[in-house]
Amino acid sequence: MRQMALIGFLQAQNCSNFAASWRHPESRTDFMSADFYRHIGKVLEAGKFQLAFFDDRLGMPEFHGGRYTEAVENGIRCVKMDPVACMMAMGMATERLGLGVTYSTTYYEPFHVARMFATLDLMTNGRSGWNIVTSLNDIEARNMGRDDVVEHDARYDKADEFMEVVLGHWDTWADDALIVDKTTGRFADASKVHRLDYKGQSFKSRGPFTVPRSAQGHPLLIQAGQSGRGKRFAAEWGEMIFTYTPSLDVGRKEYAELKALCASTGRDPNGMLIGALVHPVVAETKMEAEDKRAALDKLPLEVDSLMLLSEALNFDFGSKPLDEPLTDEDIASMSGLQAIRDRVLKNAGTKNPTIRDFIRISGRGRLNNPWVGGPKEVADMFEAYFTAPACDGFVVGATCVPGTYEDFVRFVVPELQRRGLFHKDYRGATLRENLGLARPEIGAWRNIKRGAA
Amino acid sequence: MRQMALIGFLQAQNCSNFAASWRHPESRTDFMSADFYRHIGKVLEAGKFQLAFFDDRLGMPEFHGGRYTEAVENGIRCVKMDPVACMMAMGMATERLGLGVTYSTTYYEPFHVARMFATLDLMTNGRSGWNIVTSLNDIEARNMGRDDVVEHDARYDKADEFMEVVLGHWDTWADDALIVDKTTGRFADASKVHRLDYKGQSFKSRGPFTVPRSAQGHPLLIQAGQSGRGKRFAAEWGEMIFTYTPSLDVGRKEYAELKALCASTGRDPNGMLIGALVHPVVAETKMEAEDKRAALDKLPLEVDSLMLLSEALNFDFGSKPLDEPLTDEDIASMSGLQAIRDRVLKNAGTKNPTIRDFIRISGRGRLNNPWVGGPKEVADMFEAYFTAPACDGFVVGATCVPGTYEDFVRFVVPELQRRGLFHKDYRGATLRENLGLARPEIGAWRNIKRGAA
Repeated sequence: MRQMALIGFLQAQNCSNFAASWRHPESRTDFMSADFYRHIGKVLEAGKFQLAFFDDRLGMPEFHGGRYTEAVENGIRCVKMDPVACMMAMGMATERLGLGVTYSTTYYEPFHVARMFATLDLMTNGRSGWNIVTSLNDIEARNMGRDDVVEHDARYDKADEFMEVVLGHWDTWADDALIVDKTTGRFADASKVHRLDYKGQSFKSRGPFTVPRSAQGHPLLIQAGQSGRGKRFAAEWGEMIFTYTPSLDVGRKEYAELKALCASTGRDPNGMLIGALVHPVVAETKMEAEDKRAALDKLPLEVDSLMLLSEALNFDFGSKPLDEPLTDEDIASMSGLQAIRDRVLKNAGTKNPTIRDFIRISGRGRLNNPWVGGPKEVADMFEAYFTAPACDGFVVGATCVPGTYEDFVRFVVPELQRRGLFHKDYRGATLRENLGLARPEIGAWRNIKRGAA
Repeated sequence: MRQMALIGFLQAQNCSNFAASWRHPESRTDFMSADFYRHIGKVLEAGKFQLAFFDDRLGMPEFHGGRYTEAVENGIRCVKMDPVACMMAMGMATERLGLGVTYSTTYYEPFHVARMFATLDLMTNGRSGWNIVTSLNDIEARNMGRDDVVEHDARYDKADEFMEVVLGHWDTWADDALIVDKTTGRFADASKVHRLDYKGQSFKSRGPFTVPRSAQGHPLLIQAGQSGRGKRFAAEWGEMIFTYTPSLDVGRKEYAELKALCASTGRDPNGMLIGALVHPVVAETKMEAEDKRAALDKLPLEVDSLMLLSEALNFDFGSKPLDEPLTDEDIASMSGLQAIRDRVLKNAGTKNPTIRDFIRISGRGRLNNPWVGGPKEVADMFEAYFTAPACDGFVVGATCVPGTYEDFVRFVVPELQRRGLFHKDYRGATLRENLGLARPEIGAWRNIKRGAA
């Protein structure tokens, strides 16, 4: 029987992706300590989550001209730490939980990324994943030595090359290359270690690579492209796709489309899992859950939305009255997460929405479409989406950390297990084994048809 | 009373800096597992070592034309993992041991390095250090997207700017900037968070930085520059300097020179500790230790030396007969670790040494000048160097991992403690506290006189 994947959506920062979460009375405030991440990891592992992955952004939100005062004063994601260090704190406190980290294809050398993630995969015994992002944000560009962000589609072309280098290096040690025989002094079979010798338009890297393959072959590839070009990239490379699904009908449709896009590249679509972002608010009873939700709705400030929209779309949402229609020029000047802009334009009923429309429709900074209820109601929603199918699993976002995960593991996981929708225990040691994904064969990715969309 | 620092010299690879170590019967072969690093960390912490730091090189040794066969077949440092992941495995298994990682100023963006190390410092509660290298090696350059290494002095000029960005970002959050008051909703005082706005010749980075200061202010700065330009860089920036000292007399002289160089920058020379690399081979008795040493001397192969010299000097030491004098052109074409070349030229008695001279005098790949004996003899050597003074502490290299550290902690540490030369226990929580170094004041590094040598 098909079973779902559960994935924790983590941030190495002072709040969850729901920026107001830090204001919740039950949120822990030791978010700059290893103990905080260890605790979350133990909660998720007790709940048999297959994976937890860390989001990233190389900067803090701001308004036009670099005004960051509001971000710092209100704690709108202003503390943003390196996710690798936080992931390892969690990884060393767990034994089966898979652990992903976001790393950009825009600001690093692919040899570094290949080596970093290959090592994380060894240190976690084959439990690691790489969430591939192309970095969409001008703020990041300016911290990382550039003036502006690279144009959207060009970023993805560069990212394709980046993937070829990373996967290329990961393939250079055969699984049986190591010998480590002290008596003969033979360490490894050099005929089973190859040099990549990659020369592309944007990247070159020679090798030989210096890290042998891990228990699961190589780290899981996680992706979240939502634009047309982004979806193609996801379908070609991604093994776990992170999506946002506003409704069951849209989800079912987009699920089928993305699986078909994946199949059109020559891949087995079962080798690409789709995880839908959800924000469960659960308690022992529906009534208690609704009280919780009411309390959560009081936490966000308007400025949370304005800053997070500004950051996502490289446009100053603090520059105009909330109810003034944005001009065509305003809309055209937006870049970054194009899927957000497009969703607002599609649902606002006008080509000149107001900033209030952006807040309302995007839900950014607010508690966006939470799934509220007791164990039964919430499990019903999970079951409906999973069996539709609108997804293969769920990326569980937190409204309070670690509270959301503690509640979810206590109330919802047992109900999903009882229904046979979720595994009762880890079936294997590696992340791929626990997701039911095959260990990747060396070179298999070279057979994928690129640009098939 | 002045007490010494003890520092483990670690590698995230298949051998120690003594490449033959993996062939030792007692070396552990699980060097690609977290358990290996956890075990070393626990041994060092039981021995009250203040610090352990990971060496790095972004590639494996080779001969001319990229021939890496010998490196792989003989295990000459051919597995080289990311040191941050290995450091975190060790850091999460220890509570007081300081933990350093080598990171290059040549292949990364300074914002990334600043954020990575600031986060490591938070996750380890103020126990982290950054070993600053400029990367001297053509092999690394070719893996990291370049054709050749940047010229020696230019690398250091770039590194100066890199340091200004990293330390600049580390200074941008005042120690009392965080408020985290849920009742008022005030997260931090924005007037205490500044933007760096750095624009130099080689680097630019805007900010604001996204990681507040740690318990020890910021990570310890470790450096090992040995050339003239490298020593100046070390004296200006380094807080722990890693040196190689061929004899007590040379060590005493160079110690005084480096401290004077440090003082000439306006720094307190006590704020810059000097750690001398040593390779102790110890046992319960002198005779047993000598047996151990004899066994160790059988492990290195000639090819170990040839490959490691090739890698360090960007010259093919496999290309000529061992006893043929190298030409002036050969010598002139060497780059990389210039201190090695210079030492050989100085000690060979000719300006055209042979490759055998390079092997003998550099000691590279061989057990170079080990300190062999029972607890008393070895402690005597530590005492002589420390009290000369030729150093403030020792960087302990391993000939067998974890054997060297287990032996050292069992036999030598108690004797050093008995003599009052080494602390009986950690005096504080942070690395700086345990090294007797002050917490850095914000902006203090800006008063250092640059280019004073």
